[in-house]
Amino acid sequence: MKTFTKLTIAFLIIYSCQKSKETETVSMKLNKEEKVDSTQIKTIFNSALTEGKSYEWLRDLTQNIGGRLSGSTEAQQAVEWGEKIMKEVGLDSVWLQPVMVPHWVRGEKEVATYKLNGQQKNVAICALGFSVATPKEGILAEVIEVKSLDEARALGDKMKGKIVFFNRPFDNTLINTFRAYGGCVDQRVRGAIVCGEFGAKGVIVRSMTNSIDDFPHTGTMSYGDLPKEKHIPAAAISSLAAENLSKDLKENPNLKFYFKQSCETLPDAPSFNVVGEIKGSKNPENIFVVGGHLDSWDLGEGAHDDGTGVVQSLEVAYLFKKNNIKPKNTLRVVFFMNEENGTRGAKKYAELAKLNKENHIGGIESDAGGHTPRGFSIDANSENTNLLQSWKKLLSPYGLHDLDKGGSGADISPLKGENVTLVGYRPDSQRYFDYHHTSRDTFDKVNKRELELGSASMASIIYLMDKYLYSDTPVKP
Amino acid sequence: MKTFTKLTIAFLIIYSCQKSKETETVSMKLNKEEKVDSTQIKTIFNSALTEGKSYEWLRDLTQNIGGRLSGSTEAQQAVEWGEKIMKEVGLDSVWLQPVMVPHWVRGEKEVATYKLNGQQKNVAICALGFSVATPKEGILAEVIEVKSLDEARALGDKMKGKIVFFNRPFDNTLINTFRAYGGCVDQRVRGAIVCGEFGAKGVIVRSMTNSIDDFPHTGTMSYGDLPKEKHIPAAAISSLAAENLSKDLKENPNLKFYFKQSCETLPDAPSFNVVGEIKGSKNPENIFVVGGHLDSWDLGEGAHDDGTGVVQSLEVAYLFKKNNIKPKNTLRVVFFMNEENGTRGAKKYAELAKLNKENHIGGIESDAGGHTPRGFSIDANSENTNLLQSWKKLLSPYGLHDLDKGGSGADISPLKGENVTLVGYRPDSQRYFDYHHTSRDTFDKVNKRELELGSASMASIIYLMDKYLYSDTPVKP
Repeated sequence: MKTFTKLTIAFLIIYSCQKSKETETVSMKLNKEEKVDSTQIKTIFNSALTEGKSYEWLRDLTQNIGGRLSGSTEAQQAVEWGEKIMKEVGLDSVWLQPVMVPHWVRGEKEVATYKLNGQQKNVAICALGFSVATPKEGILAEVIEVKSLDEARALGDKMKGKIVFFNRPFDNTLINTFRAYGGCVDQRVRGAIVCGEFGAKGVIVRSMTNSIDDFPHTGTMSYGDLPKEKHIPAAAISSLAAENLSKDLKENPNLKFYFKQSCETLPDAPSFNVVGEIKGSKNPENIFVVGGHLDSWDLGEGAHDDGTGVVQSLEVAYLFKKNNIKPKNTLRVVFFMNEENGTRGAKKYAELAKLNKENHIGGIESDAGGHTPRGFSIDANSENTNLLQSWKKLLSPYGLHDLDKGGSGADISPLKGENVTLVGYRPDSQRYFDYHHTSRDTFDKVNKRELELGSASMASIIYLMDKYLYSDTPVKP
Repeated sequence: MKTFTKLTIAFLIIYSCQKSKETETVSMKLNKEEKVDSTQIKTIFNSALTEGKSYEWLRDLTQNIGGRLSGSTEAQQAVEWGEKIMKEVGLDSVWLQPVMVPHWVRGEKEVATYKLNGQQKNVAICALGFSVATPKEGILAEVIEVKSLDEARALGDKMKGKIVFFNRPFDNTLINTFRAYGGCVDQRVRGAIVCGEFGAKGVIVRSMTNSIDDFPHTGTMSYGDLPKEKHIPAAAISSLAAENLSKDLKENPNLKFYFKQSCETLPDAPSFNVVGEIKGSKNPENIFVVGGHLDSWDLGEGAHDDGTGVVQSLEVAYLFKKNNIKPKNTLRVVFFMNEENGTRGAKKYAELAKLNKENHIGGIESDAGGHTPRGFSIDANSENTNLLQSWKKLLSPYGLHDLDKGGSGADISPLKGENVTLVGYRPDSQRYFDYHHTSRDTFDKVNKRELELGSASMASIIYLMDKYLYSDTPVKP
């Protein structure tokens, strides 16, 4: 090859740099106060991206403790970890809020299998949270496939002695994958209520995911007010297994499906929310809560659900302290216990807030994974919704474009009220249901920058909420 | 645990669905024609997300062929694969465009090591593309650390016989990681020009990444117009190794660094761009080009760089055909050869376009990874820039908010002209430099939905460009 000419070098430089030519557009027209805010927000982001702690906290929580289902030893370790780490950040006060939580245990690894044309097929399944065990010898029965609760209900007595197979997949045309989840999760939560009533032997539910893969997704289910003798075992099967079973049932509608699980609900166990706060400098009686949930399902490490929310919530306080931002109102960080199967922590927190006449004026929850930031979902009165949406020009340089009305999160929504401004942090949702409630929800799936950008996004909107919501009219409880 | 009450079930349903409550906001006010466009775009997205082919194409390209550096057997296999797959999609015509490409080979796995306090440290390195080999026995020399080309230049003769270590890290406060890349890559591209001039023995360059990890990132470098005897070996070292070496140099500034590589530039090799098109129904002489690059570095599988761009480009044509969208202008898909080290394919394509008096009115390139869509970067005159930006309300429901002016891409930018509207597809950039030019750039890092959303994003803007750019005033060549 001939030696490069100067022109070629210039070209090399140009094409190597080409992808980077876009300008960072922080340049919309801002008034004087907005410039102050813009600078503060930039400082928050710079700090998160260069001296953030969340990634190492998450490594510690997920890899040294791991999955931490309510009532488990790991959940208790997580509580102790949470208290320790909050104290390390130097919050003004840190305390534990006792709460009794459900204590369901999975027991031995589940087994499922069936035969087609003499060939044995092993199926990836996992028990659903709160499900009863199968008899020790397992369950063997014919399978009826349905796509909805209504379709199941219509079967009536035909399902007696059978296994009902709920197989309605995610609607993959929905851009926000949480909507697809919302469109399917009734099968998991209520399938056993409908089928227990009519004497089905068990239910198996297609995993809640956009993907076709071989990882079963656990999650909570319920027996409603069915009497105990109508409680039937409920399990999730992987989406790939669901596709295959559906095909195989067309070939042999009488094939018999076998599954065995030994899960059990033990007596409620004592646990805690972990709470810490920075006292407000002006209106300490007004509280903004920032939280995620400390418990997780047992199959993975509870990384995206919701280790990321936990560490991001604490990082909000860390970023305030590190950058000497003194909130006018009290900034309270809460690691909620038991979001996954009972939300007892959330209920307890709201109950105590009411009992103690605490004045929550707003909050933010991060429980949608630790992926790259997209924005916030706003649950507030229209005046405050408009106010938050007016910050778009301050937030959009950080990829925070979504500022729609919507729910906040399971843990802070019990605080809802006419004058309470609740926000759900909304990262990109595309990858979330690849991991959600599975053995794949592990630390390595989290990207450090995406996590830190999330912390900074949350800190930025809380900075603005603290400054502009009720700033001059402190509401007395 | 006591039986659930009806209230509790209702609550379970509510909190299970809560995250999914956000509305999909496709609802901005649209005029009649915009409604037509909105419906067409929705169809494109639905189709990509339910019957897209790009993910399986990518699996085939990355896992059955793998890394495909220009001149390699794999690159030739990729050309044949590209031609075959374009024909399978049923484009009106498919052809190969011959082009001679540089043929650099890495040779044996590189070795690097140094001793500190008697302890040997092995260092993860890789030769930079176009670098010469070290002598067979390797190079052993003291190290001078610098942070910039200027700092190196200022050393002058002091670097004689030494290894110069370029160690300026990415600026992690830049939200768009491509900007951070652009701020560092001069060290990799020009380091050896500066240091070869003054008789350094070699250069080692910190890998181009936001992360601290142990994967060296290769990439192209140049010797400019230095005479052959001044060509010195150049290698990338992992960012973790760079951090450690920097620390160790503080402890022992005289430590000797050893590295050995056996790379070589062979004579130019014959290769091809792969080109296919759907003839325009109204103005076939007007061409929109859609492309990515077929070659990749050799260390990984060339998944995000740029297998995703290749399969997305073809998926644009596939989505047009599948949904019976007949472009008025000719839609041409190009798999460019040799973007990574020479852009000979791009130059050849532009040269032939000029020679054949082809009328390119616009194009889009995907060469920024296959992550979740963020928008487009627009390189066009101000009238057309405004036009494209006016489509924001049609695109934002799909997370496509970024519509800033900026570069398009290395392969289509040679087509630039006053009346040519070039667009760079811009996915989220946060994870890109975790993989870029490393052994980690593999199929498993690509998410199916993110990939498909990218194809649909590209198809949507091409649909709009085809409809509204010059639609009634075909420009004759």
